[in-house]
Amino acid sequence: MAGNSFGTVFRFTTWGESHGPAIGCVIDGVPPRLPLNEADIQVWLDKRKPGQSRFTTQRREPDAVKILSGVLDGLTTGTPIALEIENVDQRSKDYDDTKDLYRPGHADFTYDRKYGIRDYRGGGRASARETAMRVAAGAVARKVLGPSVTIRGALIQVGPHKIDRARWDWDEIARNPFFCPDAQTATQWADFLDDVRKRGSSAGAVIEVAASGVPIGLGEPIYDKLDGDLARALMTINAVKAVEIGDGMAVAALTGEDNADEMRMDNHGQVQFLSNHAGGILGGISTGQDIVVRFAVKPTSSILTPRRTVTRQGADAEITTKGRHDPCVGIRAVPIGEAMVAVVLADHLMRHRAQCGG
Amino acid sequence: MAGNSFGTVFRFTTWGESHGPAIGCVIDGVPPRLPLNEADIQVWLDKRKPGQSRFTTQRREPDAVKILSGVLDGLTTGTPIALEIENVDQRSKDYDDTKDLYRPGHADFTYDRKYGIRDYRGGGRASARETAMRVAAGAVARKVLGPSVTIRGALIQVGPHKIDRARWDWDEIARNPFFCPDAQTATQWADFLDDVRKRGSSAGAVIEVAASGVPIGLGEPIYDKLDGDLARALMTINAVKAVEIGDGMAVAALTGEDNADEMRMDNHGQVQFLSNHAGGILGGISTGQDIVVRFAVKPTSSILTPRRTVTRQGADAEITTKGRHDPCVGIRAVPIGEAMVAVVLADHLMRHRAQCGG
Amino acid sequence: MAGNSFGTVFRFTTWGESHGPAIGCVIDGVPPRLPLNEADIQVWLDKRKPGQSRFTTQRREPDAVKILSGVLDGLTTGTPIALEIENVDQRSKDYDDTKDLYRPGHADFTYDRKYGIRDYRGGGRASARETAMRVAAGAVARKVLGPSVTIRGALIQVGPHKIDRARWDWDEIARNPFFCPDAQTATQWADFLDDVRKRGSSAGAVIEVAASGVPIGLGEPIYDKLDGDLARALMTINAVKAVEIGDGMAVAALTGEDNADEMRMDNHGQVQFLSNHAGGILGGISTGQDIVVRFAVKPTSSILTPRRTVTRQGADAEITTKGRHDPCVGIRAVPIGEAMVAVVLADHLMRHRAQCGG
Amino acid sequence: MAGNSFGTVFRFTTWGESHGPAIGCVIDGVPPRLPLNEADIQVWLDKRKPGQSRFTTQRREPDAVKILSGVLDGLTTGTPIALEIENVDQRSKDYDDTKDLYRPGHADFTYDRKYGIRDYRGGGRASARETAMRVAAGAVARKVLGPSVTIRGALIQVGPHKIDRARWDWDEIARNPFFCPDAQTATQWADFLDDVRKRGSSAGAVIEVAASGVPIGLGEPIYDKLDGDLARALMTINAVKAVEIGDGMAVAALTGEDNADEMRMDNHGQVQFLSNHAGGILGGISTGQDIVVRFAVKPTSSILTPRRTVTRQGADAEITTKGRHDPCVGIRAVPIGEAMVAVVLADHLMRHRAQCGG
Repeated sequence: MAGNSFGTVFRFTTWGESHGPAIGCVIDGVPPRLPLNEADIQVWLDKRKPGQSRFTTQRREPDAVKILSGVLDGLTTGTPIALEIENVDQRSKDYDDTKDLYRPGHADFTYDRKYGIRDYRGGGRASARETAMRVAAGAVARKVLGPSVTIRGALIQVGPHKIDRARWDWDEIARNPFFCPDAQTATQWADFLDDVRKRGSSAGAVIEVAASGVPIGLGEPIYDKLDGDLARALMTINAVKAVEIGDGMAVAALTGEDNADEMRMDNHGQVQFLSNHAGGILGGISTGQDIVVRFAVKPTSSILTPRRTVTRQGADAEITTKGRHDPCVGIRAVPIGEAMVAVVLADHLMRHRAQCGG
Repeated sequence: MAGNSFGTVFRFTTWGESHGPAIGCVIDGVPPRLPLNEADIQVWLDKRKPGQSRFTTQRREPDAVKILSGVLDGLTTGTPIALEIENVDQRSKDYDDTKDLYRPGHADFTYDRKYGIRDYRGGGRASARETAMRVAAGAVARKVLGPSVTIRGALIQVGPHKIDRARWDWDEIARNPFFCPDAQTATQWADFLDDVRKRGSSAGAVIEVAASGVPIGLGEPIYDKLDGDLARALMTINAVKAVEIGDGMAVAALTGEDNADEMRMDNHGQVQFLSNHAGGILGGISTGQDIVVRFAVKPTSSILTPRRTVTRQGADAEITTKGRHDPCVGIRAVPIGEAMVAVVLADHLMRHRAQCGG
Repeated sequence: MAGNSFGTVFRFTTWGESHGPAIGCVIDGVPPRLPLNEADIQVWLDKRKPGQSRFTTQRREPDAVKILSGVLDGLTTGTPIALEIENVDQRSKDYDDTKDLYRPGHADFTYDRKYGIRDYRGGGRASARETAMRVAAGAVARKVLGPSVTIRGALIQVGPHKIDRARWDWDEIARNPFFCPDAQTATQWADFLDDVRKRGSSAGAVIEVAASGVPIGLGEPIYDKLDGDLARALMTINAVKAVEIGDGMAVAALTGEDNADEMRMDNHGQVQFLSNHAGGILGGISTGQDIVVRFAVKPTSSILTPRRTVTRQGADAEITTKGRHDPCVGIRAVPIGEAMVAVVLADHLMRHRAQCGG
Repeated sequence: MAGNSFGTVFRFTTWGESHGPAIGCVIDGVPPRLPLNEADIQVWLDKRKPGQSRFTTQRREPDAVKILSGVLDGLTTGTPIALEIENVDQRSKDYDDTKDLYRPGHADFTYDRKYGIRDYRGGGRASARETAMRVAAGAVARKVLGPSVTIRGALIQVGPHKIDRARWDWDEIARNPFFCPDAQTATQWADFLDDVRKRGSSAGAVIEVAASGVPIGLGEPIYDKLDGDLARALMTINAVKAVEIGDGMAVAALTGEDNADEMRMDNHGQVQFLSNHAGGILGGISTGQDIVVRFAVKPTSSILTPRRTVTRQGADAEITTKGRHDPCVGIRAVPIGEAMVAVVLADHLMRHRAQCGG
């Protein structure tokens, strides 16, 4: 009921606070006999790791993951896989001054009102640090999906600056610190974010994730539709305020003729769609086309400009957020978005098998 | 696992096909001793009912709901509430010609591939007829929420035509067939949709729902955040392709300064927010401000223009959809969106009580 | 959360009161393309139907089941299967006198205290009438399990009178009104129960259910062990107070040597167990041997002897229960027990497939 | 789906193998602001700890629990509580000889067949070591229940030797190594078990747990009845083969008159029951009387007498189990049984609050 678990068959539960001794997760329901070691997970964690460029937080966390159960001699056993990462570089003192202040745009106020208590150090449980465990679970989910499914994410907008989709090059992603598929726009973003950072401000972003090779038939209508579960998965990432599938908000302005992706048989006797406005999902079920999702991330609320707020005790106050923060959390949201798509797909692959067989 | 249930404490399960004898739902977990009768539900069903203007499908369904259990002498008993609506005006023959054709943009192809069988009559289980039961469940959820919570929806865009938010008037909603809060735009839509209808085409739409009076503290971080559950709830409505909370996709272009809703104490010792970019949710928990969500509905895929498709047997074909359809399903999506917001809030009200007490 | 659903992949939800218009259930997650019609279900309902001998209640309910959704042309479609049975022979007036009295041994007191309201007519939701829907769900579960799994139940004790296991004959079950596998004991029970009935008293019973042909490997350790789920399934049947697996309570007095079922390879290269003290389950997982469970049913609490009780208003009182009741509810519990074993096995068959594949 | 979680609102997930680096659990849904520290948990773990007398296994595990999250300054925060215990005294070498042998009465065969792989060292996941985490979760559950609820367990039968209930003295429990409430029988058991141990054999046992002070109204009919959930909870403890509520199996032989616990108003205007055959539960809901459950534990399957078995490769073989084992696992099952009753009650306390309010 309390919401720290995700998934049904492939199900993981995360725990840990930003400034506690460690963070971790337990992944239950993983198929047995899959090859899995710590390096398989670390490679994805390293993409999300803070401090890799001047555009992300300077907190230095090695984020070295340990597997504590569920794997024997390099193979999963079908029992719960416990993963753990030590917190190394906490600076709880940074938060002493703002202990009794609610940071605008943060969860400080709501956690305090909901629970009557909150861990004020670095956001506690509401910290984006929790997302490391999403990435770890996503790494295991990729193993479940196997090599025929490819899940790739890209940053497509930073502040008001969008990429030019005509220049999209997946190979470009690895060459700039933004997971940007458009080299030219990446350069523009660097300038823009340097300015944002210097002003002590922050910027929002839009991320797109595409999954190729997804089998036809995943998704459980009515309420566990694949797009419904993806929307929930992505909306629960810190700072996300919108989720789109396929053409997203733009479908409102499409004509019925344009919207309906037509079909033709190809030379191999397979159904081919002539367009993909639907983003690979019809009636909540995967069509076999690329699954395309986008989500918008708000600007980091921790900024240097003083903002009006109130204290825990009920007095007006001003706050300037210290601590180490990302000027654009959207950057590190790329591997997180990929991971959430992976866990949803792995879960639905297994759910489909339960009802409909191999 | 199969996905025909929604919610955890306030949990409902729907059943029924477009052309079966009836549709229904079972609502479990409703608090005891709430006043409830059929009229309480019927009033909301009547808003969604087809055939109320020339802009919605001409299928004539009285949608008269019957309560079969869980209510004694006008009060809920705490046991499951079974609701049922007879299907009255099926015309299954309309579908004989397209029995073996996959309608582009529809779930025909995916249901058939997932299950190896599909009820081709009127969309079967994938029909929007299922949404009547969402509205019925929403009516019961409103009883759980009580009179201090108000949930209202409005159509804010049809095709490319958006309302002028400066003219927003909630009272206007009841005066036009579009749930449009802007009288002037409603007139424009009538002309636009008459043209769409005559051409046998269809149009998309955007709906906004606002919930006022929601208590602070609803939502269960991390994976059952209030916005995550709202996103799932709305994305599972037929034809929805995007969900926004608060500023939605537009947050990407906000500055950190603008995004963070500032706070001040008011004269009654209550915290007041000076803006609501967050849409009433921070860290996945309600702030006490209005909860504001939007969702985009794609154009009806059933159009008169011939479209390229394939047959069940694997041959290329063309299809022109007959049957009776909404030129803009977005209109009737307004009461459905309201209902889904209501069920999410009712569920979280009870979930919060479970962990944190009254 | 409210508990009217059972199962995870094969999941059903029941609704309805003893004296409401109907009872019903929704079964979600059934595999597609299974042959299913009403007769497939009716045959099992008829075994549980009241009024078939002088040893069960004289309420006359045809218990004719209708399938309202989820089946097309005699095949399941993978969508929810809604089943419904009209209540025909209610005599609510029988309960007017005891409306404000708590019947000892009944759920009257606890329902009233839990919910602050109760449907006093015939036990309302707590009536054994609900079990008809368990039997219906069990019939569908048998379809999921297929013909290689056989589930059979027997009454093995009535009041203090146990069968002689040496005389066990499955064919005898159908020849007496008790589902008794021992003809001689059946005769003895008839005399015993005639006497019980004449005295206006009632008797308890023990039921044994055996499932043959169950594949090796069903059950999800640790908390969803097959025996754990069977225990829950059987303990939730009205009036059940104990559940045993294999040797049950008697294991306490076994030696370690006797308890451990030894193994040998047979001529077909299959593992054979030399005994079955474990009742077909080790570590919560099926061994391939017969699954053997027993459960004890208390005597019907509705008896003619006056009993001391209290009123809703808090006064001491006496009660003599009228209405029509079973002198030994254990008899009709046999098909119910079989059904609950069937639904647990069907669910675990599909759960196993989800994680471990075909 | 995979079954390593228990509970709905108060929900915990355990992980870890007998011979892995550690075992642990995550408890989600704990109410905020409860005082909790490691000593609160350790006190219960110490009761279950091995090696405290010659009647339990000689494996030396300090079982020192660490709280890794969810507690701030000695108070729960409402976020997940992660607990961890290092495995200190593994001797994996003990298992090298039996790596390919299925121990009769153990889960070796079923795990291997279910998952196609098993951790053979000390039973892996199927080891009773997992139960330490049940006890830890139970300690937290007691905090949720508060001081008005008392949960106490006792060993009431070892092998064929039952206690004399006339001599029941709860204070005696702490004075002998058996949690035995009857001093005289405890002495008899010591002799009996010394003999069992010397012969390299093992013995079964029966445990009784009583919960006092439980509020009226806990339990969610129909399928989440309090007794159904208790049955599942107890049946999933390693080696348990039977669960009884109240009079248990003996209800079969009761008369209707004896079975129905009569009621009277007491001097404080409260309902008093004149007997408790029902074990404190009617219709699946707590009555306010003591909740009384019993469960039977089979003899340890690891014995020194050679037993017939088969190898992983499919050959007949003999096995003599080495390693360190409990001659009567039933002894240490007493605190485990208490813990499982505690977690079920805590969960239902919160579930009741969700639907029915404070």
